[in-house]
Amino acid sequence: MPKFKVGIVGATGYTGSELLRLLIHHPDITIECVTSETHAGKRITDIHPHLLDISDIRLESSDNISDYDLDLVFLALPHGVSMSFVKEHGLDKFLTVDLSGDFRLPNKKVYEKWYKKKHVAETYFENAVFGLPELYRHEIRNARLVANPGCYPTSAILPLTPLVKYDMIQTSGIVVDSKSGVTGAGAKAKPGTHFPDLFGNFSAYGLTSHRHTPEIESVIHNYTGYTTEVLFSPHLLPIDRGILTTTYSTPKKEVSKEMVEELFYSVFEKEHFIRVVDRPPLLKHVRGSNYCDVHVTYDERTNKIITVSTIDNLMKGAAGQAVQNMNIMFGLIESTGLQHIPLNP
Amino acid sequence: MPKFKVGIVGATGYTGSELLRLLIHHPDITIECVTSETHAGKRITDIHPHLLDISDIRLESSDNISDYDLDLVFLALPHGVSMSFVKEHGLDKFLTVDLSGDFRLPNKKVYEKWYKKKHVAETYFENAVFGLPELYRHEIRNARLVANPGCYPTSAILPLTPLVKYDMIQTSGIVVDSKSGVTGAGAKAKPGTHFPDLFGNFSAYGLTSHRHTPEIESVIHNYTGYTTEVLFSPHLLPIDRGILTTTYSTPKKEVSKEMVEELFYSVFEKEHFIRVVDRPPLLKHVRGSNYCDVHVTYDERTNKIITVSTIDNLMKGAAGQAVQNMNIMFGLIESTGLQHIPLNP
Amino acid sequence: MPKFKVGIVGATGYTGSELLRLLIHHPDITIECVTSETHAGKRITDIHPHLLDISDIRLESSDNISDYDLDLVFLALPHGVSMSFVKEHGLDKFLTVDLSGDFRLPNKKVYEKWYKKKHVAETYFENAVFGLPELYRHEIRNARLVANPGCYPTSAILPLTPLVKYDMIQTSGIVVDSKSGVTGAGAKAKPGTHFPDLFGNFSAYGLTSHRHTPEIESVIHNYTGYTTEVLFSPHLLPIDRGILTTTYSTPKKEVSKEMVEELFYSVFEKEHFIRVVDRPPLLKHVRGSNYCDVHVTYDERTNKIITVSTIDNLMKGAAGQAVQNMNIMFGLIESTGLQHIPLNP
Amino acid sequence: MPKFKVGIVGATGYTGSELLRLLIHHPDITIECVTSETHAGKRITDIHPHLLDISDIRLESSDNISDYDLDLVFLALPHGVSMSFVKEHGLDKFLTVDLSGDFRLPNKKVYEKWYKKKHVAETYFENAVFGLPELYRHEIRNARLVANPGCYPTSAILPLTPLVKYDMIQTSGIVVDSKSGVTGAGAKAKPGTHFPDLFGNFSAYGLTSHRHTPEIESVIHNYTGYTTEVLFSPHLLPIDRGILTTTYSTPKKEVSKEMVEELFYSVFEKEHFIRVVDRPPLLKHVRGSNYCDVHVTYDERTNKIITVSTIDNLMKGAAGQAVQNMNIMFGLIESTGLQHIPLNP
Repeated sequence: MPKFKVGIVGATGYTGSELLRLLIHHPDITIECVTSETHAGKRITDIHPHLLDISDIRLESSDNISDYDLDLVFLALPHGVSMSFVKEHGLDKFLTVDLSGDFRLPNKKVYEKWYKKKHVAETYFENAVFGLPELYRHEIRNARLVANPGCYPTSAILPLTPLVKYDMIQTSGIVVDSKSGVTGAGAKAKPGTHFPDLFGNFSAYGLTSHRHTPEIESVIHNYTGYTTEVLFSPHLLPIDRGILTTTYSTPKKEVSKEMVEELFYSVFEKEHFIRVVDRPPLLKHVRGSNYCDVHVTYDERTNKIITVSTIDNLMKGAAGQAVQNMNIMFGLIESTGLQHIPLNP
Repeated sequence: MPKFKVGIVGATGYTGSELLRLLIHHPDITIECVTSETHAGKRITDIHPHLLDISDIRLESSDNISDYDLDLVFLALPHGVSMSFVKEHGLDKFLTVDLSGDFRLPNKKVYEKWYKKKHVAETYFENAVFGLPELYRHEIRNARLVANPGCYPTSAILPLTPLVKYDMIQTSGIVVDSKSGVTGAGAKAKPGTHFPDLFGNFSAYGLTSHRHTPEIESVIHNYTGYTTEVLFSPHLLPIDRGILTTTYSTPKKEVSKEMVEELFYSVFEKEHFIRVVDRPPLLKHVRGSNYCDVHVTYDERTNKIITVSTIDNLMKGAAGQAVQNMNIMFGLIESTGLQHIPLNP
Repeated sequence: MPKFKVGIVGATGYTGSELLRLLIHHPDITIECVTSETHAGKRITDIHPHLLDISDIRLESSDNISDYDLDLVFLALPHGVSMSFVKEHGLDKFLTVDLSGDFRLPNKKVYEKWYKKKHVAETYFENAVFGLPELYRHEIRNARLVANPGCYPTSAILPLTPLVKYDMIQTSGIVVDSKSGVTGAGAKAKPGTHFPDLFGNFSAYGLTSHRHTPEIESVIHNYTGYTTEVLFSPHLLPIDRGILTTTYSTPKKEVSKEMVEELFYSVFEKEHFIRVVDRPPLLKHVRGSNYCDVHVTYDERTNKIITVSTIDNLMKGAAGQAVQNMNIMFGLIESTGLQHIPLNP
Repeated sequence: MPKFKVGIVGATGYTGSELLRLLIHHPDITIECVTSETHAGKRITDIHPHLLDISDIRLESSDNISDYDLDLVFLALPHGVSMSFVKEHGLDKFLTVDLSGDFRLPNKKVYEKWYKKKHVAETYFENAVFGLPELYRHEIRNARLVANPGCYPTSAILPLTPLVKYDMIQTSGIVVDSKSGVTGAGAKAKPGTHFPDLFGNFSAYGLTSHRHTPEIESVIHNYTGYTTEVLFSPHLLPIDRGILTTTYSTPKKEVSKEMVEELFYSVFEKEHFIRVVDRPPLLKHVRGSNYCDVHVTYDERTNKIITVSTIDNLMKGAAGQAVQNMNIMFGLIESTGLQHIPLNP
């Protein structure tokens, strides 16, 4: 079988770097071009020295994209830049997996409210499929534009949708308390990510205003038909990789610990990358892998359902999920090239 | 003024070590004796080498306690051992500040249910005052036995009591999502605290069953008159010191962000160790100090009141609070010897 | 081609776990049996929960080893236990790669001096080949017993041997200042590896007495013919994985920065897992991979040659190197199943 | 006794912040003014929120310095800026403790070679006393300009000077292998200090070219009369605070472990802030304190003297030492206001 040809647009950030880690050894694709506007002309190892002897790719400008005959392009670009790329290139030349937030929300209006930024490619919202394979596998198969989910939303939507869909929980008062490693904030040094300030530290941020809130709510609505109200509270963990999300919700009817566990086992039984675990999961048990570990329990005393889920934010929360989407779009086995065993300890 | 004479029973753990850090330079007391059953006869610097040139105390058996004329004894002992000490020595010889959980709960029955352990000194429950000065300052002043609060409960009770007492929130459905550094698990090496397994890791534990749950509920009840249902979920942060607690509750009546902020400013205005902050607090801003930083906000979209509070678990969560209680019991200014400025960064 | 059949004896430690990570997806072998005396009967996921859905192996006693027709056995056992296994099973039934220190030293006498332990299988010293492929590839190919190198020695021998062999440095006064992550101390919790005590901490240990000293010296002697005197100083880094070793030595003759760099480029040119880098290497650039990054420079002012090398102690320092040895012993391409790209950041 | 009046010029960095931590509670001084050019007009708590309720100082421009009647000024300014301040204000108005590197080296020529920067106040080199009290206590007492030592040099000079001065070691071939926490790189976020890149990482840097080399050599020369050649290799530890320095040197004559230990005990016997320890010291045993812990040993096998020393780089390596110098200049007891017990664990 001839290999599929892919390009990576914007390869100097953490998600670009992680895409390279996954795609270099992917058996069914070749990386045709890798772009960076600021570093065009340099070797990839000038930017990512850990790839020495592994890849000798040269970075080029995304203007060169049209010179290649590509099957698919990953956009590892900042919010606001992806939409310009899509506007310029359209969706006919190649399939597109966008890792930014530009096409995750239902429409321009919601986008502009939460991202405080004008959307320049609104006509493409109708083409975009939300790239969470466990929910939208069939739609992804035929999509030309996949909006790869945010890392926080991935960790929250996976445990919440079964509860909402199967009428287990009330749709208001859902609390999502998330804790993320610092790679989630991107590869660029900024005052808030200076090492000595974060080391040994911990804090909440973006309470009541984080842009992942509407992403969680709109996907749950789209998938289950229910309108939910989700309070999303992100916290910054003093580690490099990983998100752990704890959710709290109130049962709609009488439930038991066994009932919610069975629901999770049955919903996720055939999912390669979802592991239902019988104890609260540990972040390092998914490090470097594409797994999402999910735990659910019910507290009789307070009548609350609790879920705890873990992902590596650069894998199932970004690049791993993007490759999973690519596999689906190409008709490959979904886990191809994604068999990384967690790096533990 | 002659100095007060104190003893530390059980000085080889983290709280014992932190008590020494605070008491060695305390201007109004002298440390008369420091005990350890396993290390009696050794110098304190054999166990705590960082005290070299600072203290030349020798450890002795607690059997020797009666040889001293003490004003107050700190019990830095494991749960279950403190009560035996109290049973043996009574409360007449010296004032007692117990840093274990043996006298924090309202009675023997609740204790035995949550601690899975027989209580051997139940008659002293009626003497014990819960040592949270911001709530029970007057009772502490006249107490002979102070039950020093748990670290998690301190971080949860301080932000929750104003909301409950001033009728701001519904008493059911209160979620307390706490994250603690590893010193909270004690100084003894165990499988769960092996460095490589925790480094870069994060997890929840003790969901629905942690013994700090009844401590939080019973103190809120005792102080406010309201019976609450609190879901307490602890998580283990891969750092040494510090607890950050996020709480979620539902307003009882119409509220606004300004209203809850004003409530906190007014309730804590005169509290030396409580700092109401207008942004989510950072753990390192209280490291090594006796402060509790508290933030409160209201999310209109989901109608939830959120609080975030931070303490150093060995200070306001243990030894610092114990010294604060001692100061009150001795009639000293409450902040004497506790003016440590946070060690940041 | 039929697959080779291997066993892992002692799979519950960190090197056992890392061997599983590497061997489960190795294309040319099957894992026939995995042993643990203390956990025989349990599933591997009871001990290593991160392998859930990845492996359903059951642990058995090493007494069962004889029931299998094995091509090779990895001994991931503590020092002192491997030699008993070898004594019992001999070398005829299967090839053996021993990850302990039992056969790394030249003979019983040196072993007993540094390990303070009686050696019970001394006749096998003559069979043992030191498993550093970059030095002993040909010998490994025909060996029946490979003594897999220690993690520290691997990081020190690789940069030092070219300098000694090509007569670049004086053989006395060689300083090896090593810094290792805590997984090097094993998977068992002990007082010295309690999380709060190591977090944010750093120290030297085992100055002048570490048992890796004779391993470094004897291998350099065996390989180059020169007798050296190496001062080896280990330090404990507050991280999970990785060793960085800085060496200092004095030129024997006139050298230049360019000369030593060229030597390294030429010596390591064809080595798949050695990357000569032109700047001091970073630990995370080898994390999770089998690479050893090596940097060399010359300081004219003080007339010293400096090398800095990095490895992942569980990979090139243990399990990765063991699999590399296995590949050689089986006549496979040396990098088979070891193409892990460093997990960075 | 009326209190001494001091100013802090440049208070927004880490050393400025640490000076505030030390001076706010210092019993014999008052902080008259605190300056920042970029934040003039703001409250100190806008920049250092952890000082909330502790200090209500307002930042002002250093132009205002002349409005105050100050006894002493701390310059917590970047290299290159301090000298302009000294040039402008001279040394008559107030005593000056400069925490930058501008006056640490012997003269303009050496400065410009290593700092690659023009020196604009060369006439003041002759006034500057190197502020290491253990070496220059008497000179500091009468100095009007004290050049506060660099953090690395402090950790290297303290263990090396006894060995050089008492003729114990050869003056060439001295290796100084230092490991520093990241606060040593300053409070400003830069690409090299981005949290995810340093977390769990470790590396050497500035090999053969670090500007602390001439500081170490010139101070040893000045103090002992011997010209030494020191190879200084800094490494970056993934922690916030602390420097550990390991030195290696060759005896000039026959020595023993006991001899070098006795030398250290006798030299440092009366030094309040130097603790000679009989085991390799731990970084956290000095955290937050002004101690320097020093260990010395001799390796007979390789005939090398090894020292290991630890400091908190913001304390004995910067602000703590600056306050120690101030105490001496004011004729106060040297440890006044510096009695912080190490924050361990």
